[in-house]
Amino acid sequence: MTVGQSPELSELFAPKSVAVIGASNRPGKVGTSLFRNILKGGYQGVVYPVNPSSPSVSGVRCYPDVASLPEAPELGVVIVPAPAVAGVVDELGKAGARGVVVITSGFREVGEAGAALEVEVVRRAAQYRMSLVGPNCFGVINTDPAVGLNATFSGSLPPTGRIAFVSQSGALGAGILQYGIAERIGFSRFVSVGNRAGVDENDLLVALGKDAATRVILLYVESLADGRRFLETAREVTEVKPVLVIKSGRTPAGERAALSHTGSLAQSGRDQLYDSLFAQSGVQRVDTLGDLFRFAKIFSTGLSMAGPRLVILTNSGGPGIVAADAAVRSGLELPPLPPPLKATLVQRLPSIAAVSNPLDMTADIGPNTYRETLAALLGAADLDGALVISTPTGTMTAQDVAQAILDSKKANPKPIAACLFGLSDLSKEVAFLEENGVPTYTFPEEAVGGLGALARYHAWLTRPHTTVRTFAVDRAAATAAVAKARAAGTTVLAEYAARSLLAAYGIPFPKVETARTIDEALAAADRVGYPVVLKVASPEISHKTDVGGVALGITDPPSLRAAWDSMQRSLRAAAPNARIEGFEVEAQVPSGKEVLIGVQRDPNFGPVVVFGLGGIYVEVLRDVTFRLAPLRTLSAEHMIESVRAFPLLKGVRGEPPSDLAALAEIIERVSQLAVDVPEVVEMDINPLIVRAQGHGAVAVDARVVLSPPSRGGPSA
Amino acid sequence: MTVGQSPELSELFAPKSVAVIGASNRPGKVGTSLFRNILKGGYQGVVYPVNPSSPSVSGVRCYPDVASLPEAPELGVVIVPAPAVAGVVDELGKAGARGVVVITSGFREVGEAGAALEVEVVRRAAQYRMSLVGPNCFGVINTDPAVGLNATFSGSLPPTGRIAFVSQSGALGAGILQYGIAERIGFSRFVSVGNRAGVDENDLLVALGKDAATRVILLYVESLADGRRFLETAREVTEVKPVLVIKSGRTPAGERAALSHTGSLAQSGRDQLYDSLFAQSGVQRVDTLGDLFRFAKIFSTGLSMAGPRLVILTNSGGPGIVAADAAVRSGLELPPLPPPLKATLVQRLPSIAAVSNPLDMTADIGPNTYRETLAALLGAADLDGALVISTPTGTMTAQDVAQAILDSKKANPKPIAACLFGLSDLSKEVAFLEENGVPTYTFPEEAVGGLGALARYHAWLTRPHTTVRTFAVDRAAATAAVAKARAAGTTVLAEYAARSLLAAYGIPFPKVETARTIDEALAAADRVGYPVVLKVASPEISHKTDVGGVALGITDPPSLRAAWDSMQRSLRAAAPNARIEGFEVEAQVPSGKEVLIGVQRDPNFGPVVVFGLGGIYVEVLRDVTFRLAPLRTLSAEHMIESVRAFPLLKGVRGEPPSDLAALAEIIERVSQLAVDVPEVVEMDINPLIVRAQGHGAVAVDARVVLSPPSRGGPSA
Repeated sequence: MTVGQSPELSELFAPKSVAVIGASNRPGKVGTSLFRNILKGGYQGVVYPVNPSSPSVSGVRCYPDVASLPEAPELGVVIVPAPAVAGVVDELGKAGARGVVVITSGFREVGEAGAALEVEVVRRAAQYRMSLVGPNCFGVINTDPAVGLNATFSGSLPPTGRIAFVSQSGALGAGILQYGIAERIGFSRFVSVGNRAGVDENDLLVALGKDAATRVILLYVESLADGRRFLETAREVTEVKPVLVIKSGRTPAGERAALSHTGSLAQSGRDQLYDSLFAQSGVQRVDTLGDLFRFAKIFSTGLSMAGPRLVILTNSGGPGIVAADAAVRSGLELPPLPPPLKATLVQRLPSIAAVSNPLDMTADIGPNTYRETLAALLGAADLDGALVISTPTGTMTAQDVAQAILDSKKANPKPIAACLFGLSDLSKEVAFLEENGVPTYTFPEEAVGGLGALARYHAWLTRPHTTVRTFAVDRAAATAAVAKARAAGTTVLAEYAARSLLAAYGIPFPKVETARTIDEALAAADRVGYPVVLKVASPEISHKTDVGGVALGITDPPSLRAAWDSMQRSLRAAAPNARIEGFEVEAQVPSGKEVLIGVQRDPNFGPVVVFGLGGIYVEVLRDVTFRLAPLRTLSAEHMIESVRAFPLLKGVRGEPPSDLAALAEIIERVSQLAVDVPEVVEMDINPLIVRAQGHGAVAVDARVVLSPPSRGGPSA
Repeated sequence: MTVGQSPELSELFAPKSVAVIGASNRPGKVGTSLFRNILKGGYQGVVYPVNPSSPSVSGVRCYPDVASLPEAPELGVVIVPAPAVAGVVDELGKAGARGVVVITSGFREVGEAGAALEVEVVRRAAQYRMSLVGPNCFGVINTDPAVGLNATFSGSLPPTGRIAFVSQSGALGAGILQYGIAERIGFSRFVSVGNRAGVDENDLLVALGKDAATRVILLYVESLADGRRFLETAREVTEVKPVLVIKSGRTPAGERAALSHTGSLAQSGRDQLYDSLFAQSGVQRVDTLGDLFRFAKIFSTGLSMAGPRLVILTNSGGPGIVAADAAVRSGLELPPLPPPLKATLVQRLPSIAAVSNPLDMTADIGPNTYRETLAALLGAADLDGALVISTPTGTMTAQDVAQAILDSKKANPKPIAACLFGLSDLSKEVAFLEENGVPTYTFPEEAVGGLGALARYHAWLTRPHTTVRTFAVDRAAATAAVAKARAAGTTVLAEYAARSLLAAYGIPFPKVETARTIDEALAAADRVGYPVVLKVASPEISHKTDVGGVALGITDPPSLRAAWDSMQRSLRAAAPNARIEGFEVEAQVPSGKEVLIGVQRDPNFGPVVVFGLGGIYVEVLRDVTFRLAPLRTLSAEHMIESVRAFPLLKGVRGEPPSDLAALAEIIERVSQLAVDVPEVVEMDINPLIVRAQGHGAVAVDARVVLSPPSRGGPSA
């Protein structure tokens, strides 16, 4: 992140003047094409070439250095060799420039020497509070005719449109621009962020979120500059406009050696972590570049779909069925037609028409019926949008169909997507529809995919806005537990310490008391309530069961006496020298469903909460879900619902449902702990027993790992 | 299925003469466009219009009826109204025609009257042993210039190519043809099968399998004419050439009420059944029309990929990473480069190149290096194919890249797919590559998808060819068990009857003996071996546990005596009037993993075997898999491996692996039973306990449902 001049980054996107330092006349040089592109792109400000060895560049008077320019350039675009860049940035700063785009490569991406150069560039830009894009980037584009800035070395500009594209890969960005030209896809802004030494995707999300010309923001990233800031930023920006992301690098070549238990989970689930992050921030993660542009197309129209209820209007059965399948895959619904509407349409349409959803009008339809049918469907309160599929017929040309669609659309703001099946994307009928706000797709499935993205975005906008709940906790006790472990020089907390840390955050454990004599044990058992478990408490006995130090299922005082005596004998025999601190009398854990709740502290994402059903579900079937802490009530609920084994918690085979409210609250409390106590780098409650609805949940075992003392900060 | 004239269906695809009955001159009529299309499509035979009311059609001499034609037409194309079609088919048959395509609609698809007309059409065609396509279809195309037949009402012909397309939807087919023209996709054959009264997709698979011009067969189906014949046919055809299918209608609007336990599973898993069928027959099921053509494109080149090991060659990082992610999704592998090759390339390529897989040569590459690098990669024995991604650079034009790819390709038959990122599919460079056998895609993910399909097809061709094992079974006992139930008028077999049926097929059950006295019981327990289970045997007690009629875990004679006495008391109290046939002394089932093996008899697919882990995995998590019986050893193994819970059978947490060989054999035995005993419409072994490797498996409970007596045929 850079110390930018303005949140809108107007110094980058709409500078009144630009200096191109390193502009050139030599064919094939980046400085040559970049300067020409600015000239040729219809830039409405003043562009100055800077080059000490040319009197002019592309016929424009050239200046030997920034200081000689007749005015302070608002933006500098730098193409000089890497070692000279910091000096140029300094000159620009001195002259009063507000932004700088460093195209030059040879910085961090080439190793240590380059990284040092980059640090210097960043320092200079920060010194003058300049926005910095790059280094090692492809440049910046603003297609707004009032600005007309193409500060890249891409030869031609895509059409002006509503899609902003931010790319971490310059070449991919260049390819996309060319694709945009070939396929007539309109862009509003384009930024190649390169090494992200200054401006990163987070800054751009903020700026593009405020940009009136942009209706949808597309990101291509291979990593996130700051996962946590991304979450916060994207959550705000997605309230205003949709954000689509391709996060590549799902398959790291090397895999870190398995860490601890949950550690290895989180590692193998790293891509799942990105999924969770995007889901939590309202960003739609897209799998392929094809989908990215198909989704972007529909968002760029500004259409919105107020629910998932789609109607499919077709003039042939097969493509309608294909679309229906795809609709279900895309999360859309195909409700039956409202009976009065159905009755009307049955009268109006040919007898062989299938008046249902999909609605197959058959091929024998003229423009009037087409228009009236679509208008009637759009008018139905129970339907949120329409897909129109048209296959070639003898009765209507594709142009007739396009006109009928547009006529029906006039009266109604509901979204329509179209598939003029068989026509090339580049046909005039497709262009006619798209220019008039009807996104048109090659295949029915693609159109449905776009509508599905639209409906998902609306669902995000209208989700219940829950908050991060803050529970009253005993922070002093938590701090004390951590401090005690620190003082003892341990990083893995002892069981009682882990419990007291968690208990301080309201995580329920079974009632337990420590007894030194059988009388104390009997009294304790009365207080915690039978059935009880008796356990030896000794820091020197780690595997209590092995030495007969655990007795389960004690139901009454005589059994407790018997268990006590038996345990004393076993311990004398098996651990004669162990220092015994006492005996724990613990309420026996009731039956319920076993779940795991964990915390991982990720270098990029910060504290991450993990949830899954315990045992096999987590360990073997990897059925887990992640969310970044702090998480809201809705996210806690989503976590619970998103594991495959969720039906087990809902209750099957006549079982009562588990106490999901109690479970969600415990997840939220764990989230609060993860945020409050930064020393905790890893934590598992495994298992937590979730009882039937109304009966709460209770933790059985917990494991807490602290950061090494040198790394851990104080508990704030 | 029709009684066709030839397996190659040459009477449809390459007739020497065609009569168009219902040819017309009136604009907008199907008979007008169809006749014109045959003329205009460059048909190399003789086409005759037949119409009693015109002296000529499109300038060609017209005949009043088939009988008046100067020669017997090899093929008749019929466009007369539905009621007249059967008469025309009769005329054609009398004249000696060998095939007939009925375009006319108004048959089965419109109800009973139409269905009756259709029966008559089929009868006439069969009488003269004519191949029948349709009715209610869009026609037939053969693009081979030596034939040049466009017997459809689609205005223009797609280019000649290697893709055969069979569509159950005429309109979808028409759209696809138009798409083929727009996108320059070459077809060899096209058939719209309409109502499939005669020729169906199975006949066409056979014919197109033999067609030298066709390299890949595409099917669009909404249902299969005969699931079982499809399996057999497709298995043979896929040995010769790849078959891709879109099976739509995944989401039936209505859902049948839940049947019995496994019944409801199979119902909700109906689409999964298709998945299994396609997997078993080597047909690649494709999700979208886009993928269908992207996959078809690579198969139409005739390229084959001898393994999944892909190398990605790129001139920029980002698209390479995107492709790498997609490769893993498509089931491909990206092995590291062989060290000697890597060493050579490191020397040859710029220092900033990433010589790895993906291999990023960077943008600073000239044609020679490009060509040499690709040739070297193709030459590596450890790599099976290459994806070349090229983003726009200043150093090479797209044409240079295309030429470099083709130069490298010359020496090597390994498949190359290309992505000239940013170029339209319709650009000349893409055409140049594709004309020379390099399938080229808009986006890297699409190219990888195509290569993945290629590798999957090769894996199918080279799979271990296991056979259907036939076990020595006691068919007489099985027949007797069924006959006895039939005689008793029951369809749900009693437990002992179900057991004896299954035992006849070698499904192991715990040893059991029936005792009438405690002494008999003690003797029986000695023979079956402790621990044993004691159960009351009474046809009048269905819930034995409720009346104290089951005692588990009996470890020795005294315990057996005690259990015996206790059971007698309980039964006297709880079921004083029940007729008791005796008491079963059964070896107690050892511990192991619970699985379910079931059989469903599907009207279209015949017997289907179901497998999943028992209990929650099947019932709640729906983690089941299906295969059509009879199944081969490999299919049984695939079933076991394809459930999500398979790791539990492989052994986790230090457990030994389960006896998978025994499990596979039992699945195969169940498959044999399902095929042999057609009266069994439904069967569950639930649970079967699978013990550790080498210890076999044993069934605990079984449920067998027979067809109602009226429907069930005799056990062959």
